[in-house]
Order: sequence, then structure tokens, then C-alpha cells
Amino acid sequence: MSKQRKITLSESEIPTHWYNIVADMPNKPLPPLHPGTQQPIGPEALAPLFPMELIKQEVTTDKWVEIPDEVRDLYSIWRPTPLFRAYELEKALGTKSKIYYKYEGVSPAGSHKPNTAIPQAYYNAKEGVKKISTETGAGQWGSSLAFACKLFGIECEVFMVKVSYEGKPYRKLMMNTWGATVHPSPTTLTQAGRIVLEKDPNSPGSLGIAISEAVEVAATNDDTKYALGSVLNHVLMHQTIIGLEAKKQLEKAGDYPDIVIAPFGGGSNFAGITFPFLQDKLVEGKNVRAVAVEPTSCPKLTRGVFRYDFGDTVGMTPLLPMYTLGHNFVPSPIHAGGLRYHGAGAIISQLLKDGIIEADAINQIECFEAGVLFARTEGIIPAPEANHGIAEVIRQAKQADEEGVSKTILFNLCGHGHFDMSSYDQYLSGKLVDFEVTQEQINSSLAELNTPVIA
Amino acid sequence: MSKQRKITLSESEIPTHWYNIVADMPNKPLPPLHPGTQQPIGPEALAPLFPMELIKQEVTTDKWVEIPDEVRDLYSIWRPTPLFRAYELEKALGTKSKIYYKYEGVSPAGSHKPNTAIPQAYYNAKEGVKKISTETGAGQWGSSLAFACKLFGIECEVFMVKVSYEGKPYRKLMMNTWGATVHPSPTTLTQAGRIVLEKDPNSPGSLGIAISEAVEVAATNDDTKYALGSVLNHVLMHQTIIGLEAKKQLEKAGDYPDIVIAPFGGGSNFAGITFPFLQDKLVEGKNVRAVAVEPTSCPKLTRGVFRYDFGDTVGMTPLLPMYTLGHNFVPSPIHAGGLRYHGAGAIISQLLKDGIIEADAINQIECFEAGVLFARTEGIIPAPEANHGIAEVIRQAKQADEEGVSKTILFNLCGHGHFDMSSYDQYLSGKLVDFEVTQEQINSSLAELNTPVIA
Repeated sequence: MSKQRKITLSESEIPTHWYNIVADMPNKPLPPLHPGTQQPIGPEALAPLFPMELIKQEVTTDKWVEIPDEVRDLYSIWRPTPLFRAYELEKALGTKSKIYYKYEGVSPAGSHKPNTAIPQAYYNAKEGVKKISTETGAGQWGSSLAFACKLFGIECEVFMVKVSYEGKPYRKLMMNTWGATVHPSPTTLTQAGRIVLEKDPNSPGSLGIAISEAVEVAATNDDTKYALGSVLNHVLMHQTIIGLEAKKQLEKAGDYPDIVIAPFGGGSNFAGITFPFLQDKLVEGKNVRAVAVEPTSCPKLTRGVFRYDFGDTVGMTPLLPMYTLGHNFVPSPIHAGGLRYHGAGAIISQLLKDGIIEADAINQIECFEAGVLFARTEGIIPAPEANHGIAEVIRQAKQADEEGVSKTILFNLCGHGHFDMSSYDQYLSGKLVDFEVTQEQINSSLAELNTPVIA
Repeated sequence: MSKQRKITLSESEIPTHWYNIVADMPNKPLPPLHPGTQQPIGPEALAPLFPMELIKQEVTTDKWVEIPDEVRDLYSIWRPTPLFRAYELEKALGTKSKIYYKYEGVSPAGSHKPNTAIPQAYYNAKEGVKKISTETGAGQWGSSLAFACKLFGIECEVFMVKVSYEGKPYRKLMMNTWGATVHPSPTTLTQAGRIVLEKDPNSPGSLGIAISEAVEVAATNDDTKYALGSVLNHVLMHQTIIGLEAKKQLEKAGDYPDIVIAPFGGGSNFAGITFPFLQDKLVEGKNVRAVAVEPTSCPKLTRGVFRYDFGDTVGMTPLLPMYTLGHNFVPSPIHAGGLRYHGAGAIISQLLKDGIIEADAINQIECFEAGVLFARTEGIIPAPEANHGIAEVIRQAKQADEEGVSKTILFNLCGHGHFDMSSYDQYLSGKLVDFEVTQEQINSSLAELNTPVIA
């Protein structure tokens, strides 16, 4: 066998530091604002929600942040993750380009989310926190945090978007297996939930509502903190372990990507694989493209505006500078639940604003078509979120072929689709539909915003 | 990090040959008999069902059989699989013993089954076979063969035990995603199915019935062959790739097992991990124990008899020498669907008869208790089948601690439980029950046999 499909690293090659892209950004992200006063807030304002060490990481401009030994040790439960050359997919596409994918689905929860769940649980445990509350949409984040909390003996309470709770019972059971308590959100347990239920007793819930509930539980209980699975700076930084490993692996393969691709929900998956390569672009002027792929039904990067907005629906979180569709925007019920979020994180938004990264939007039928081709060639059945990355890879490879060039394309296969088989059923039986977002919908959602605009 | 959790191999270290234990057995397995004449059959009798190369492998006494390059190449889609030291489980048990597990759940289908599906599809494709029919219970085997057939452009038709077809729709969808046709068995498509349905129109099906249907389709269609996922000699041999890799990995860790453990259904999982170590026992007299773990509700190894029996329910297959409960024995509906089979393969049965291997039987509640502990410590949620191995590991570790000794224990974590979460729901909500098999049940099932006894 001359060709090598899988490029592995040993445990000793697990990176020792996370990469903080803020250090290398030409324009730093704008500060968060207080939801009430709309004035910039300092780290202390976040103290009710997060342990101090994570708040420090949220605001640090240090380029490298050391990964604690205990976290590296627990990372080794599934890390380093493999990097694959997608020979069978390349063959099926008949492309001249080389396609690599980093596979994060080997983690206990089946996605990249434990990369930040483990350190978040670690820092909370170190500061004596007894319980962590969080929200989850598709369930990837909730199950990752459930597992991480179990390792550190912390109680875990998850507010799961009701429509997912009912539609994805196995994800909920996964959290239960790891010992977490899971509620279908909106609940009557919180003020935020009760407000929503009063307006709409049959509310199917949303990520924004679930965040409001989880934040409220943390803010009103002394021994409880809150954890978020994406968007925030420290979360994105934890995920850079993905790209740092991928760089080492590509180096072993004697390769470097022309294009790095990842699906885009809140930004953690995308940041994880691209930031370590963007470092080369920002520092050495390396010619590498980073493409974020969002669903056309939730097009904040390609059709949203750059302004301050809330991270949640009720308006309890600090205001963040973001590309947003407005925090009241309700995305259509596509199967990639992890991509149904109205905004993007502060770092990503600044990078997009500055033209350092690119974005594309793809319909879900094209994504599932790509996912099934991937399953039938590479063997892994991808999560619906991951299918967005694959569809973009195929677009880029076809374009390169049309131009008569060969590109080296890297993408993050962020998770497997074992808990999403009913979505595949919809696709295979021809029942899957695409959703159009009209400009009126976006305009009307944005018109409701009374948050600060950015000059 | 001084301790190493995960012992990996590079692709170039994928073994080049499968190990055939028959070469080293003091007593060779008895020959199969013709179902009608009850006389020993030669390889030619199997020609309607299998391609010639697999028939040769079925009867060969060569110690090593070369793995074709194309098969090794496709193995590299997921192989070598990782070997883990279960540090977190050891800590939770407070044991002095060392526990290692080989993790086969990283394969596309999520279990060890593709190890034989790939070579079986390869040899069929090489001989121009257009279609392969097979049966599946829990769905692991069916999905593995569906994937393998897709890689070689062969049509795949799966008879899935009806109760599983209805209870595990996601496994069926996985097969569909890989392009296979799946029928709930018994069907009206075959003579065998119609006979069963005539007697019992509401038959929930069984592995034995599904085998009868799949064999009939192959036997009555020129361009169709049949494939079996366990029991037969060549299937067990393909699985030895597991133990061969594990030996290399333990060598890297500077260790050798005192006890090797695997769940037992038809024998392929158990053979895969233990045979390469049994080689050392048979050839060098090495002191290594191999323990097969079956469910108490289907106790062929611990309470069955050693005699000739059919592999299927209707009586279409050759008669094999096996530990059996009788081919009409209907196991209780435990969640480990892959272990609900009345008999054991010829090689395993001979090894048990000769005292070279051991067997133990465990109730499913004890198994799920072990599986949940494993999930909460090591992170991976195991398949119900795999939980039997874990429960035995815990028994052995506790016994060693009672005796004041430290053992090195290796087990095969044959698959993940992502498609079995409803079983965990049953366990976590206290609804799981154990099933007792009375001696009368066994006696009455065995009394129906009119197959040759073994002196």
C-alpha cells in the first residue's frame, strides 16, 4: 500500500497550547456591551456566569494559552483525532484536487464539542462549582457537557430545544446515560421560559430561548455556572486543537491546504479548523482561503448585518458585535439543528468584516446529496451539519476542475450522523424540502432590533 | 503526560495475513454434513452459496492466509483500530488489575463486522457475483455488508429479523443510506418465509428464519451468492485481524494479557480477539485464558449440547458440529440481538470441548450496569452485546482483587451503542428485566433434534 489514507498522531503530539487568533487580528473584536446600559462591560460582569479562568481566556490577547495537563490527559480519551485523505470521494468526483478531512466524530459525544466541554468542566470544577446549566439544540453540545461534567463530578442541567427533545429522543438518552438532567425548553422552571409559554403555550422552543433559560438558572443560583458550546472567544480558542493537530498531520503528509472549509453555526467548528491556518495568513501572508458554510435558511454571514445583538432570545446576555439576522429570527426547521442560530461570534464577525474569511450558503438538499455520496465512498455517515462542509468541498473541487487546476482542500468532518438517521430517511424517500428566506423576512426581523449599530 | 491511554498503529502495520487457528488445533473441527444425506460434504456442495475463494478459506488448514492488497487498502478506511488502556474504568473499580480494550466501533458500521464484510464482498466481486443476500438481527452485519457491497458495486439484499426491523429503524436506514434493499423477515418472497408465515402470520422473525430466507434467495438465483456474518471458519479467520493488531499494540505497551474476553453470539467477535493469543497457548503453551461471554437467556456454551445441528431454522444449511440449544430454540427478547443465536461455530465448539477456551453466562441487567459505568468513565457508550464483555471484565478484576493479585485483562469492545439507546432507556428507567431459561425449555428444544449426535 503506497497511498496513505489516515494520518495519525501519537498522544504525545497533542498540542500543549490553544491558539488565540485575537493576538494576530489586524482589528480586534469590539467589546461586549451591558444588556441594560449598553456600555462596554469588564470581565467582572461575567463572574456570575463563568469561572474566573474562563473569563480571563475570554478577554486575553495572549497568542498561546497553555492547556492544563489534566485537560490534555482527558483529551487523550479520543484525541488526537485522525486526518483522512478522501481517496474514495476524490475518485467518485473524478477531481484533480486533493481532499483531506479531519474527523471529530470519534469523540464520545460524536462531534468536536467535547474539545471545549472538557476544559470548561475542568475550570468550573477547579473553582468549586457544583452544577453547570446549559442549552442544547441538536444535542451535540448537551451530550458533550454531560460527559465532561460526569468526569469531574459536577451536576449537569440541560435545556434542550423542545422540538429536538421530542424529535431526537436518543440524544436525550445519551445525556441521561452520562447522568445529566434534561428539560424540554421552554419550561415553567424559569422566568424566561414562563414568558415565552405565556405568549405561546405550544412554543417548539429555539436555541435562543434555551440559552435564556440556562443563563437564568446560573444567574440566580450561587453554586451554578453557565456554559456555552460556541460563539464566545474562549470556546473558539479551545476548538483550535483541531486545526493545530491538522497542521501537524498535513505536514507529515507533506501538504498544505489552499482552502479550509467548515460548516457554520455559532463558529466553533469553523474556528477550530481554520484559525491555526489563518495564523499563517495573518502573520506570514500565506495564501490560504477559509470558507464558512451556512444553510441558506439561516444566512447571517451572507445576508445578515454587522451590529450589536443579544446572544439569546429574551435579551439576558451581553450584547455582542455580530453578523446577525436579529435575535428574534426563527430559522426554518432544517435538519442541521446545530446551524439554526441567528448570529455569529465577535471574532468571526470581525474577520468576515475585514475580508479575512469567506462565507457561502447552501440548501439542505444539496448538502444531503453530498452527505450520501460521502457515506457511500468514505464510509462515514456525516451529521447534517457536516454535510454543509462536504457540499462546499464538492463545489470547490468542481470549480477547480473547471479552471483546470488542482487544489488541496481540507474540511472539518465535525461529527457523525448516527442520531440523525431520520433526516437521511427524509432525503432518501424524496421528502426533504428546501426553505427560501425572503428579504422581507430578514428586514422585518432586523427592524425589531433596538440594539447599538456599529459605525 | 506519562501514561498512555491509546496505543495506535500506522497503516503500514495492518497485518498482511489472517491467522487460521485450525492449523494449530490439536483436534480439528469435524466436517459439515449434507442436510439431506447427513454425509460429510466437500467444498463443491457450498458452490451455489459462496465464491470459490471463500470456500477454499473455509476448508484450508494453512496457518496464514494472505490478505489481498485491495482488502488491506479498504481496511485502512478505519483500521488499524485503537487499543485503549481503561485507566478511568480501573480507577472507578479501584482494581489492581490492568484493563485494555480494543475498540472496533470506529468502523463505518460501528462494529467489527466490516472486517469480514469487505473481504467477502471483494471475493464475490472478483468472481463476477452481481448480488449478495444475507440476514441480519440487530443490524450490525447487514449494515456492514451493505457498505462493503457499495464499495464493490454489488447489489445487497438483506433479510432483517422483523422485530428488529420495526424496533431499530435507524439501522435499516443506515443500510438504505449505503444503498441496500432491506426486507422485514419472514417475508412472502421466499418459500421458507411463506412456510413460517403460514404457521404464524404474526411471527416476529428470528435469525434462524432470516438465514433460511437469505440462503434460499442465493440458492435459487444464478447471479446471487450468500454471505454470513459469523459462525463459519472463514468469517472467524477474517476477524483475527483484531487480535493480531492487539498483539502488536500490547507489545508496544510492553504487556501481555492473562485473560482475553469477548461477548459470544456466533463466535466471530470472540475468535477475532482471542485466536491470535490462543496461538501462543497452543504452540508455546503460554498461560493465557480466553473467556466467551454469552447471555444467560441463550446459554449454548454453558448449557447446550455438542452435536450436529442446522445453522438456520428451516434446516436448509449444512449440518455443523456445534454447541447448540437446538435450532428451534427461541431466545428471550434481550437487547443484545447479536447474541440471540442457538449455536456456536465448529471451531469454537471444538475448542470448548477440548477445554482450550472457557465460557460464562451473564444476565442483561448486570451487563447494562457495566455498560453505564463504562460510558461514565471511558466515554464510549457500548453496544448491548459489548456490555457482556465489560461485565465479565469487572467480574474477573474483582476476583483478582479478592485473590490479592493483579491481572492484565484484554477485551474486545466490539461496537458502540448509538443505535441501541432505547435499551439504555429501559435500563435507566428500571424497566429492564432478566430472563430465566429452565432446564425443561432446553430439554424440550433439544428433544426435537433428529440430527446426528457426536460420539
